[in-house]
Amino acid sequence: MKFTKMHGAGNDYVYVDCFAQDPPPDPEGLARRLADRHTGVGGDGLILILPSERADAEMRMYNADGSYSEMCGNGIRCVAKYVYDHNLCRKPRLVIESAGKLLSLDLTIEDERVERVRVDMGEPILDAAHIPTLLPGPMVVNTPLDAGGQLFAVTAVSMGNPHCVVFVECATDELVLGVGPKIEHDPAFPNRVNVEWVEVLAPDRVRQRTWERGSGETLACGTGASAVCVAGVLTGRTDRRVMVELLGGLLELEWNEADNHVYMTGPAVEVFSGEWPA
Amino acid sequence: MKFTKMHGAGNDYVYVDCFAQDPPPDPEGLARRLADRHTGVGGDGLILILPSERADAEMRMYNADGSYSEMCGNGIRCVAKYVYDHNLCRKPRLVIESAGKLLSLDLTIEDERVERVRVDMGEPILDAAHIPTLLPGPMVVNTPLDAGGQLFAVTAVSMGNPHCVVFVECATDELVLGVGPKIEHDPAFPNRVNVEWVEVLAPDRVRQRTWERGSGETLACGTGASAVCVAGVLTGRTDRRVMVELLGGLLELEWNEADNHVYMTGPAVEVFSGEWPA
Repeated sequence: MKFTKMHGAGNDYVYVDCFAQDPPPDPEGLARRLADRHTGVGGDGLILILPSERADAEMRMYNADGSYSEMCGNGIRCVAKYVYDHNLCRKPRLVIESAGKLLSLDLTIEDERVERVRVDMGEPILDAAHIPTLLPGPMVVNTPLDAGGQLFAVTAVSMGNPHCVVFVECATDELVLGVGPKIEHDPAFPNRVNVEWVEVLAPDRVRQRTWERGSGETLACGTGASAVCVAGVLTGRTDRRVMVELLGGLLELEWNEADNHVYMTGPAVEVFSGEWPA
Repeated sequence: MKFTKMHGAGNDYVYVDCFAQDPPPDPEGLARRLADRHTGVGGDGLILILPSERADAEMRMYNADGSYSEMCGNGIRCVAKYVYDHNLCRKPRLVIESAGKLLSLDLTIEDERVERVRVDMGEPILDAAHIPTLLPGPMVVNTPLDAGGQLFAVTAVSMGNPHCVVFVECATDELVLGVGPKIEHDPAFPNRVNVEWVEVLAPDRVRQRTWERGSGETLACGTGASAVCVAGVLTGRTDRRVMVELLGGLLELEWNEADNHVYMTGPAVEVFSGEWPA
């Protein structure tokens, strides 16, 4: 089976082109074997790129533990780059189907190759009950939360998955790795929560470290960066357009006033191609 | 550039066949780029397989940080498998040159492919000054060492690199991750030291967790397993032949009475092949 390793801001997956070959029969088991960083190819999971009757291509995504995943903002940028660069569809605006939804992507092309991709991340959900959080609503903005004996002002946003954004002077290991898992499991978040620790560098630039629900600290989180953009506007700390520095790279976010959608622009990189024997 | 990813007991490197293509011009920089587990191929480093005038092949090894390394017991097994399986030299006993030394390897072949390889790891160094350790000598066997307020009975062995072997009831995270780095940096070991935490399951079977100098906990360490075999004999805990269970797999060790050499037998696995663009 041929595959391509790609990453978006350090969020890396094994991509399999199912235009050119049959989809693998057991993608869950294959994802687990491929994702192992010592005995497999290594990655955050497996993404299949398939023909679609409704879109230019379909992405089907599996996490490193084999579980099915609906969407990944960093992953879909790489799908768009693959589809364009490998001549599956040569259009500067692509529509990709993911878990039954159609997503529109705008490509920045240099020297015949995709360098950056803009993704419509949809509308943020701010209603406490739908995030979900038990913190007092209707919206949770700069709301006090006690975690490990310390009081934090938190802002809760869902981008399809729940986020708790905490603005701090300095996103230290103590906060990210120590307090992060405490907030993840706080009873105030019945479905647990992703936790973003954010330093505001300027009204148009922040630095983010992410504690991902079920994964621990990660190099980049697209829905997390989207939530940070929204929380920055809600708390009056940042503009509607903001550059987000993540450990794995730089993402450009915009919470558009006209349509209420969040748009994320970021890099997509092809690392290498290979042949998996099984 | 074509490459092959291989691992021995979970110790994984990117292998480049320089019989078929020119050696890369900047192997140190290439090793750093390739070894990154998110933006590269991912691995513990880079191993070049080259023609040799004195042996069946030469291995040249670079760590993930780009530094040159003289030898790796898990890596050389994979070199032997590659040389045989890819028809560079079709002999059941191979001689591989590494850092100017010639090493003899015995292959176990099943279905025309190498499954396991036996490596001569050489003679252990037991003299305290040459390990080096400042603990009272001439040999350091079951010697008390205070680490973080706890007293441990340690045995020091060099296999070209220094090891401190500690036999315990249970190799817990507290010991491996908590006390391991304290012993690594203890003034008793002027060049720092690798620390093996070992549970004796039977006279011919032990379980080992490894704190590697400069790397932290690793899945497997060939020189460490060799040191454990020697320490087991010196302290009367194990036989001269012992199976060592590591996180990444199983190694078979023998401290041979006749020639005083340590022999290690273990698996070698080809994971996938690929093409690196740069």
